[in-house]
Amino acid sequence: MAEKLTPRATDYSRWYTEVVLRAELADYAPVKGCMVLRPYGYGIWEKIQRTLDREFKATGHQNAAFPLFIPMSFMQKEAEHVEGFSPQLAIVTHGGGKKLEEPLVVRPTSETVVWSMYKKWIDSHRDLPLLINQWANVVRWEMRTRLFLRTTEFLWQEGHTAHATAKEAEEETLQMLGIYARFAEETMALPVLRGLKSDAEKFAGAEQTYSIEAMTGDKKALQAGTSHYLGQNFSKAFDVTFQNEKGERQLVYATSWGVSWRLIGGLVMAHGDDQGLALPPKLAPIEVVIVPIYRKENEKARVLEAAARLRDDLSKHHDVHMDDREAYTPGWKFHQWELKGVPVRIEIGPRDLDQDQAVLVRRDTREKTPTGLADIQDAVRKTLDAVQAGLYKKALEFREANSHRVDVYDEFREQIEKEGGFYWAHWCGKAECEARIKQDTKGTLRSIPMDGEKEPGKCMVCGEPSARRVVFSRSY
Amino acid sequence: MAEKLTPRATDYSRWYTEVVLRAELADYAPVKGCMVLRPYGYGIWEKIQRTLDREFKATGHQNAAFPLFIPMSFMQKEAEHVEGFSPQLAIVTHGGGKKLEEPLVVRPTSETVVWSMYKKWIDSHRDLPLLINQWANVVRWEMRTRLFLRTTEFLWQEGHTAHATAKEAEEETLQMLGIYARFAEETMALPVLRGLKSDAEKFAGAEQTYSIEAMTGDKKALQAGTSHYLGQNFSKAFDVTFQNEKGERQLVYATSWGVSWRLIGGLVMAHGDDQGLALPPKLAPIEVVIVPIYRKENEKARVLEAAARLRDDLSKHHDVHMDDREAYTPGWKFHQWELKGVPVRIEIGPRDLDQDQAVLVRRDTREKTPTGLADIQDAVRKTLDAVQAGLYKKALEFREANSHRVDVYDEFREQIEKEGGFYWAHWCGKAECEARIKQDTKGTLRSIPMDGEKEPGKCMVCGEPSARRVVFSRSY
Repeated sequence: MAEKLTPRATDYSRWYTEVVLRAELADYAPVKGCMVLRPYGYGIWEKIQRTLDREFKATGHQNAAFPLFIPMSFMQKEAEHVEGFSPQLAIVTHGGGKKLEEPLVVRPTSETVVWSMYKKWIDSHRDLPLLINQWANVVRWEMRTRLFLRTTEFLWQEGHTAHATAKEAEEETLQMLGIYARFAEETMALPVLRGLKSDAEKFAGAEQTYSIEAMTGDKKALQAGTSHYLGQNFSKAFDVTFQNEKGERQLVYATSWGVSWRLIGGLVMAHGDDQGLALPPKLAPIEVVIVPIYRKENEKARVLEAAARLRDDLSKHHDVHMDDREAYTPGWKFHQWELKGVPVRIEIGPRDLDQDQAVLVRRDTREKTPTGLADIQDAVRKTLDAVQAGLYKKALEFREANSHRVDVYDEFREQIEKEGGFYWAHWCGKAECEARIKQDTKGTLRSIPMDGEKEPGKCMVCGEPSARRVVFSRSY
Repeated sequence: MAEKLTPRATDYSRWYTEVVLRAELADYAPVKGCMVLRPYGYGIWEKIQRTLDREFKATGHQNAAFPLFIPMSFMQKEAEHVEGFSPQLAIVTHGGGKKLEEPLVVRPTSETVVWSMYKKWIDSHRDLPLLINQWANVVRWEMRTRLFLRTTEFLWQEGHTAHATAKEAEEETLQMLGIYARFAEETMALPVLRGLKSDAEKFAGAEQTYSIEAMTGDKKALQAGTSHYLGQNFSKAFDVTFQNEKGERQLVYATSWGVSWRLIGGLVMAHGDDQGLALPPKLAPIEVVIVPIYRKENEKARVLEAAARLRDDLSKHHDVHMDDREAYTPGWKFHQWELKGVPVRIEIGPRDLDQDQAVLVRRDTREKTPTGLADIQDAVRKTLDAVQAGLYKKALEFREANSHRVDVYDEFREQIEKEGGFYWAHWCGKAECEARIKQDTKGTLRSIPMDGEKEPGKCMVCGEPSARRVVFSRSY
């Protein structure tokens, strides 16, 4: 029997790391802070990519590949951008055995190199909008790292778009936030808050940053995706203009937006339990695992044959795996596939076959349902839908149960320390009050939400007027 | 009217660069030797990825992502490997504002970091074979670069497999070579020689390197993919052993294999002509372009409506684009889509509509065929097949016309200088004769072919016995 996971209640952080390693999602790489995305984790990433890529293309975006290396001088062209990213840069100083004349930055994000190319590609209003995305690796030197959530190198996608007007760019920013939010809720089964970031929390070089924020199992916030309205900051820095229909030259407006493999960490933290992962069917590399059960040699052929037939039938519509390894017991396999979060398990043994049935087991509720073999296609489809909906409902209820309205600062300080969770509170909009909250509680302003109530009130720190409640939380 | 391309006969190298830039496949990045893969080029890369990835998965391989950075000390564990790659390394010396204790190599290939992980993952014969691929970027510092063919950073895939026996690893090496060769011939329409490399030309750290070699339009060889049998070189260097079924510990056997975006350069060079690219339909981002033609305003609605209907019908089975831009003339568009190598163009105007027809134009032969609208689905499908087959046939005939059997060294020297091409010649197997040929002619031993005649003879340089002819050529 494999060793049990540390329960979440005992040590959440240790539980998380054990799940990621034992479910073989990822492993530590030899370089500190770096990670290997193992095949099972990559299988999730492939489904994330496929789903989002389809959405990006349906909204007119095309993929491209921009270079890994950026001249140091490019980073310096946008003042806030270089200030924000400088402490995190990895620098190449030697190439081909020689010291380089100008050091190269390993891209921490690609705005500067993208806009140096857009300068070459954009000349007329007919070249706009320019809607490009890339799936790439980026590097940000991090002091404290955690598998998936904060790694020195990570895989992500970054969209970079250029528009003729501010309005169009703002619409693009919100459109992409909407795509992320729908993806989180419908595909990841992850309820998220959509909202604006404060100036203190926004992307270095953005006019406005929007994010989606999820809640983890230990009641912290996880920023799961960001969409930035960049205004003319990068077109100014790289002198990117176009000739409008009247023949005048104008600066271009920009957006950028991204999600990373952090989303996989989010899945673990939102849906996992003390048995391990619980994957939403829409992103599970294996949606259904079939475990044939037999003791005697004379049962084996009959059970394996029925299991294989079932696998072949179900494989027409789902990603199915039959675990017929002989070196492991059924009990060990159940444990293993629960750890790996496979949404539906089918157990099939001689007594099931005598009754023309198999047993369906849901990963999320662990509910067992004997099901006639004739109805199994339909039952599997319905069960997968039920798991997808069930995970979302559970996560939403958990977030609601751990979201609080608070008006008195001392109560907030006490409660966030004791219970964690999201706090809907009034804030005057001043950076000082935000900074004080962070210093006092480690809680940060996660979101100025686009949805939810809009009644005015008074800042819980200074008492100045506030137009609406915003959300504070500790976060990853 | 856009500027004409430099004809291939005038300056092949310049023609190549112009095609790549003007067809918007790629562009020069700000860092010397680096390149941006633009959306149209990335569209080809996506189809390459999709086709190969399906083949890799059908043969049991899974994708993963290994880290970009490799500790310098890892590179040094395999003597030949570090010797081969040292002159090409990009080195990160600073991270997060500090000098690193150990410099990091930006991966030029991933054997060392992969095998450091396989050491953690492989313990028993039950863990084998381990069949992993990654789609990634790698960096090799190059002195002389050329778009797609030799770039400092490039996109590729690299497979890394671990096996219990030498026989299995050798079979894997050949299986993957076979997948590459079939892909080149059936999908890229590119005839290739499959064969072994000499010791001088093999991968640094391999026991044996196999390659596929194509011929470019200027009669040089282009190495289009390699598959390496690594023996136990990397399992020794990283101490990767497994317990076999008898309970003994044994070293693992390895392979690695890869193709890169160089394949896109190969497509340009093999199929392009003085009008530009000619893409094989199976890899064309746009298989069919529809150009509506009208002069008078009263023709416009009718023509656009028919063109849009055609687009919608054909889009069910093909990647179709309708070019209804008003700022450009039909003639300019024809020129532009020929430059971009779209396999089939459909011209549709008022006189065509009067006869219920449209005109199909093949990119490769520029043959025009008026086709009844009722038959157009079928005609398009057949024409795409014909272009795919036609490109292959033309490339094969070109290669055959420029492949020569040669026995006298002086004739070889003269002919390769004057005509280029592939030379099937006898070679004794000694490195000295191979080195002399390279020095005298810039021709290298491209392939010890697996197919073709096997009669013995005498080395054209030294007269010693030779078991079979091998292929020499100048190359990219």
